Amino acid sequence: MITLFSMPSSGNSYKVRLLLAQLAIPFKHTATEYDGGKELTRTDGFLKMNPEGKVPLVQFEDGRLLSQSNAILLYFSEGSPLLPEDSYERALVHQWMFFEQNSHEGSIAVRQAAYRYPHRAHQQIPEILDPLLESGNKALDVMEAQLNRTPFLIGDQYTVADIALYAYTHSADLGGFDIVGRKGIAAWLARVRDQPGHVGLDWLPA
Amino acid sequence: MITLFSMPSSGNSYKVRLLLAQLAIPFKHTATEYDGGKELTRTDGFLKMNPEGKVPLVQFEDGRLLSQSNAILLYFSEGSPLLPEDSYERALVHQWMFFEQNSHEGSIAVRQAAYRYPHRAHQQIPEILDPLLESGNKALDVMEAQLNRTPFLIGDQYTVADIALYAYTHSADLGGFDIVGRKGIAAWLARVRDQPGHVGLDWLPA
Repeated sequence: MITLFSMPSSGNSYKVRLLLAQLAIPFKHTATEYDGGKELTRTDGFLKMNPEGKVPLVQFEDGRLLSQSNAILLYFSEGSPLLPEDSYERALVHQWMFFEQNSHEGSIAVRQAAYRYPHRAHQQIPEILDPLLESGNKALDVMEAQLNRTPFLIGDQYTVADIALYAYTHSADLGGFDIVGRKGIAAWLARVRDQPGHVGLDWLPA
Repeated sequence: MITLFSMPSSGNSYKVRLLLAQLAIPFKHTATEYDGGKELTRTDGFLKMNPEGKVPLVQFEDGRLLSQSNAILLYFSEGSPLLPEDSYERALVHQWMFFEQNSHEGSIAVRQAAYRYPHRAHQQIPEILDPLLESGNKALDVMEAQLNRTPFLIGDQYTVADIALYAYTHSADLGGFDIVGRKGIAAWLARVRDQPGHVGLDWLPA
């Protein structure tokens, strides 16, 4: 069985738990959570596994390792209905997943973190929060335009691109972003929640 | 023939030009460059093609569109020696490409841009430059650790992951990052330049 190192409150970690739950792939879970400086990801043992000191991280039974949430999603969704076979549809899945890591997560997740984590409270200043609001709103507007045209990000089909973007969008209001006013995104969030096997952020394997 | 909209001085655009040159895929090139507010990517026509207003952007002959540099790299390298067939090796390629967009480009490219583009000169203040130096150095150290162990990022094989990371690493010194002192990265940059069909940032199709 694989081992997943993940942070219960993190959207990047949640993506992977959601995918594994929906594909009914069993996994052993090792939790890491920020606790004021002594977190697991800063230990020498963990840094040997992932020099970036980040989760999620997957360890296979033979010891091989895989990091980066979206790389993990692509690996485990291969051959499932969540990753299209068609080369152009697959390219659009990749497009939205790189958009997520480059244009979305760095604004929307970071602004949420400034409000949610006590050790980031010093970031609650306009010089930091205002540019994050602007760039995050731009990313949400790009999603909104697409989701006013199609039910899911690449068209009619629910894919790992939707999982990747659901993670931090479903909690974007915690970062001060307006989701209710973006009807396309709000309806899409509900469609994603309605998918078979969907689990919430707080789900962990028994 | 495909059309590539790309910015001559941009690393994200250069990645795609380098890959297409190495795979000998012909393309029509449309240049976009910041010119003080009237750039092509801000026109209504362009925003209709890519609501993010970013390049690189590929338009296929039938009008279909694909954005995000690394999604474009994965699309065109499929079936070539630059993208491994093995599922775990391919996952490592994805891992490094998401690392590039999430942990590398946002620091290393952004710090270069602050020095290189006149309209970004106001970013040359310690409050902005110092955190970018710290996070960029962390990303370079992760690369250095890998490249002290293997000749290319995922092992013995040159892949699109190397192209993705080469683009902004080969010019990282323009952002004030130390490359000469990182022997693993310096040797890898030379190995990438030695690959058949390599072209520099300023290469454009005839």
